[in-house]
Amino acid sequence: MNGQLTIVGLGPGPSEWITPAADATISTADVVLGYESYLARLTPRRGQIFEASDNREELARAKRALEIASSGKRVVVVSGGDPGVFAMAAAVFEAVDNAPDLANDIDIRVEPGVTAMLAAAARIGAPLGHDFCAISLSDNLKPWATIEKRLRLAAEADFVIALYNPASKARPEQIQEAFRILSTIRAPETIVAFARAVGRADESIEITTLANAAKATCDMRTVVLVGSPSTRAVQGSHGRTWVYTPRFVRDA
Amino acid sequence: MNGQLTIVGLGPGPSEWITPAADATISTADVVLGYESYLARLTPRRGQIFEASDNREELARAKRALEIASSGKRVVVVSGGDPGVFAMAAAVFEAVDNAPDLANDIDIRVEPGVTAMLAAAARIGAPLGHDFCAISLSDNLKPWATIEKRLRLAAEADFVIALYNPASKARPEQIQEAFRILSTIRAPETIVAFARAVGRADESIEITTLANAAKATCDMRTVVLVGSPSTRAVQGSHGRTWVYTPRFVRDA
Repeated sequence: MNGQLTIVGLGPGPSEWITPAADATISTADVVLGYESYLARLTPRRGQIFEASDNREELARAKRALEIASSGKRVVVVSGGDPGVFAMAAAVFEAVDNAPDLANDIDIRVEPGVTAMLAAAARIGAPLGHDFCAISLSDNLKPWATIEKRLRLAAEADFVIALYNPASKARPEQIQEAFRILSTIRAPETIVAFARAVGRADESIEITTLANAAKATCDMRTVVLVGSPSTRAVQGSHGRTWVYTPRFVRDA
Repeated sequence: MNGQLTIVGLGPGPSEWITPAADATISTADVVLGYESYLARLTPRRGQIFEASDNREELARAKRALEIASSGKRVVVVSGGDPGVFAMAAAVFEAVDNAPDLANDIDIRVEPGVTAMLAAAARIGAPLGHDFCAISLSDNLKPWATIEKRLRLAAEADFVIALYNPASKARPEQIQEAFRILSTIRAPETIVAFARAVGRADESIEITTLANAAKATCDMRTVVLVGSPSTRAVQGSHGRTWVYTPRFVRDA
């Protein structure tokens, strides 16, 4: 029998955001690999092997998954959110690219999920209602000069900007530098939203402006959404604030 | 009783991509509104009202949904994909912005879903594994000059570019113009993928290059993914081609 390897997205947190397709794929797997906090969301069925690894070992996990699948097993690698967005699917194909023989006769699939910015946007209103971009601020993966250039061009393009991995203990300052760069192009009153741990018990949402964004707290569990010049705040009932980006851009 | 209005994403097509949260919200609604082809995916439970409308009447549908919710009903508006991405959530908040009294005492929520580019990317490999942007090519909603400027800046930023609404019967030529603009910045061998009707019986995936992209067919049900300069194709077993964008950018 040929092996199978499916990279599966668990969505941002709660089981009610795991698609039935993802759920079915996981339940029929022989072996499930992933970062321990993602595996902790799942319950192994009888006879199923869960193999946890550190979050910084993505390429090693991808190779390990391919090796197990090579032996004819049904293997799942789980990711938070969508596995294709700053997550495990690219690591698996990178492992295949590095050593094509690893993937011989393995049926590789990707099972999509709700990525963090969509859940964050849903809590805030409809900030991604118009053209947008997603940038990972982690400079473990690329030079800061590349990030800076992308932030400038994204701001000039009037994209709504979703920032993934905005800050960690090792690099608390980069998100502040990102706000300084964006402030050279976008107005101080630009809406900025911080969505932390969306869908979890400790979820928090903070809506502020670019001028005040430096005061907000953020970490690796936060997605930051920086509004475009047309992104607006609307007051709902009971003091609720909604943020949306209109579908239309009028002629200048 | 206060009314409720939830804008719900159905994902790209099959029921296995509808989240349990979306499913539960729909099943407890009194009234479900939406474009007829989205409602056709659902089965009304006993006593539930389905109200279909034309896809071009988004703002009218949003107002209608708010009016019904005002009477104390639980109302759902369904969108394909994720409701926050080029879809109904922005229309609802626009309606509230235009007439805040419409939303008095209505509990408005957004329930996220798998947006089309994520499902398209999953079928192709991991093309969105690095920084990316999403642009709607429909110039019903913005001037073509705005689209052109964004395409240029997105290409300069080395974003992978997801194009929503790339072509319709009324505007078959704009996607070709988009490819011409991108070709002034990106190399002819840049990978371009066309993902049509992902998750449906008539799904089709075509992987080609920017030089040959003009020959591919695309319509309103297609998402076009234009690779960044680092996006790569990998040969899998059985002649399968995978496309991915590496997580790393090396120092120049």
